[in-house]
Amino acid sequence: MSDFAATRALFDLPEGVIYLDGNSLGPLPRAAAARVAEMMTEEWGKMLITAWNKAGWMAAPRRVGDRIGRLIGAPEGTVVMGDTLSVKVYQALASALEMRPDRRVILSDSGNFPSDLYMAEGLVRTLGGAHELRLVAPEEVEDAIDEEVAVLMLTEVDYRTGRRHDMPALTAKAHAKGALAIWDLAHSAGAVDVDVTSGAADFAVGCTYKFLNGGPGAPAFIYVAPQHAETARPALSGWLGHAAPFDFETGYRPGAGIERMRVGTPPMIQLAALETALDAFEGVTMEDLRARSIELSERFIAGVEAACPALTLASPRDPARRGSQVSFRFEEGYAAMQALIDRGVIGDFRAPDIMRFGITPLYLGEAEIDRAVAVMGEVMEARLWDRAEYRARAAVT
Amino acid sequence: MSDFAATRALFDLPEGVIYLDGNSLGPLPRAAAARVAEMMTEEWGKMLITAWNKAGWMAAPRRVGDRIGRLIGAPEGTVVMGDTLSVKVYQALASALEMRPDRRVILSDSGNFPSDLYMAEGLVRTLGGAHELRLVAPEEVEDAIDEEVAVLMLTEVDYRTGRRHDMPALTAKAHAKGALAIWDLAHSAGAVDVDVTSGAADFAVGCTYKFLNGGPGAPAFIYVAPQHAETARPALSGWLGHAAPFDFETGYRPGAGIERMRVGTPPMIQLAALETALDAFEGVTMEDLRARSIELSERFIAGVEAACPALTLASPRDPARRGSQVSFRFEEGYAAMQALIDRGVIGDFRAPDIMRFGITPLYLGEAEIDRAVAVMGEVMEARLWDRAEYRARAAVT
Repeated sequence: MSDFAATRALFDLPEGVIYLDGNSLGPLPRAAAARVAEMMTEEWGKMLITAWNKAGWMAAPRRVGDRIGRLIGAPEGTVVMGDTLSVKVYQALASALEMRPDRRVILSDSGNFPSDLYMAEGLVRTLGGAHELRLVAPEEVEDAIDEEVAVLMLTEVDYRTGRRHDMPALTAKAHAKGALAIWDLAHSAGAVDVDVTSGAADFAVGCTYKFLNGGPGAPAFIYVAPQHAETARPALSGWLGHAAPFDFETGYRPGAGIERMRVGTPPMIQLAALETALDAFEGVTMEDLRARSIELSERFIAGVEAACPALTLASPRDPARRGSQVSFRFEEGYAAMQALIDRGVIGDFRAPDIMRFGITPLYLGEAEIDRAVAVMGEVMEARLWDRAEYRARAAVT
Repeated sequence: MSDFAATRALFDLPEGVIYLDGNSLGPLPRAAAARVAEMMTEEWGKMLITAWNKAGWMAAPRRVGDRIGRLIGAPEGTVVMGDTLSVKVYQALASALEMRPDRRVILSDSGNFPSDLYMAEGLVRTLGGAHELRLVAPEEVEDAIDEEVAVLMLTEVDYRTGRRHDMPALTAKAHAKGALAIWDLAHSAGAVDVDVTSGAADFAVGCTYKFLNGGPGAPAFIYVAPQHAETARPALSGWLGHAAPFDFETGYRPGAGIERMRVGTPPMIQLAALETALDAFEGVTMEDLRARSIELSERFIAGVEAACPALTLASPRDPARRGSQVSFRFEEGYAAMQALIDRGVIGDFRAPDIMRFGITPLYLGEAEIDRAVAVMGEVMEARLWDRAEYRARAAVT
């Protein structure tokens, strides 16, 4: 049985803050700063260059990748860390398109995170412009998968509404039509019971600073399905993805399996923070975490709908179709969120009218949910969002 | 007058170690671990998501870029941090090739760092294969610049021999022939008096974990010459390079100037370490640093040649043609380097026979140079490299 009282003790949240923005930046794990300081002084400071081997730095992107793999249903040796999520999107998409040379369409949805779309746009330009990035509404994706599609590229959980795509069903349809599927798990990894194996994803990518609590700018991950591991060819063919990086050959030869998806020197300080953060997941199963997330989300929705009639649920009401985030629409959502933040309830806002709240069982329980609901009720009841100070406040990202 | 006794006090080197591998991984700045711990606890821990604005995180890639810009002769607002050097090579090269649509040749040299060549190879494949990566010997570069060349892509200082290209001359020839020039400053930034402005580089890229001491996996930088800032179009078009990242538009619009070269979320923990490391450069000028580097390098060469007749200088003898690194050839260089490392003199080895020694005035002086020479003399005199333990030792990268 997963012990969420124990995981909660692993995080250091400021007094009086109810943090409902772990879907944007996870909080500081209590042990992370000391671990990073130790890594810096004992490994970097004392071992210097030899730490790349002696302290296991060179192997870290695979070691950490395997730990994340366990949270997303990926077998050992199929996930590697590095770069940012946007770069990993490019890497996965370029590889996938090359595996479908006779097709030209990248299918995505208009709710995808913009950076994924921008990276696809940049790749299409680099490829010469013959490809097409085709966008449809999220609910029209299934019908739009046809024999023209080379790659279906989706984010499983919508960053604004929390709507969760049906990965197994959409991937199955993509495969039936001869397309490959890339899944962005930015709002899934560490948040929902995603399983890239049963979901049959060809590639998956994600960031680690949201629900995985790896810290600001923590490195991204990439998963390549075992059947593609030796055929996927990275467009970003960096030396640490080479079959023999330290032979310094003039020509590129891809490394074995997932190794080829490495590019440059791994960010060891960020990786040390991330490794510490992942300890929180050792004591829980993703099934328990998902159940708890749904329990808390349902409580939050019921509470807010009772206390704040002006707010409209923007997330799917069916928990099976929702990630670990609850969003409400409110015309004055920006100002309302500022009023909440001033009262210690930290969520965030996405234009034009979405108030987002991340539900993170590792460090949130019933007491925080209830307190957040109560503060939201006060803000709405007293129309605090109508104050000029909140309306005029500069955007906090 | 630059005070190198003062800069030396800023670094924490282990007792008994003479560190001549700062060209691979710079040592730990004394203040870095505490600064990183403070950033983690006070900014990440207490400000949480609001730190992106309140703690100046979002602006850090530009702020740090400007500090590096001052070391490489780049005007304010022309350098930005992010990603790894390999990714930045791809970004610069893709932009430059797009600015020369009628040409197909990328000219580089066989002494370039392999990852730069691999990234170019990957880009050529992604572009459809019509481009050619043409490699010549370093000394043949000048003659090989002709009207076919779209982009001259060189690393200023050779990672094995320390040979320094003549940036102004080669760039001038490239421009005369209608080509653009990209300079990799991995072994230049913080090491030599490079000036991208007088050198007329169109793009420059570099890493920050070598002579800049930013720590393992510290982010890379990219410089775009002012005249290209508004026309260069990034192939890696990520959301933080968008004109309005937080408007979450579906289509990409490049940000103003150097901002467009940003891709994803910046690695804030690594950036905090790097910012601290850059403090060491506040008290020195690059002219003084260069003069001191030459002084120490000349002393090292003279000492080694006197004490170790079996070693052959692999670096140019003319200091003007050398970076801040001295290399010697020795058939048993691998084993000899192991013997040196065991005696506290840390350099490194590059196949087939190069022993590399980084000369870093920020934390090295005459005493260390003389001591290193003495130990090298002992190792060679006693043929310590002939011991099985050194010959058989697994590679330390």
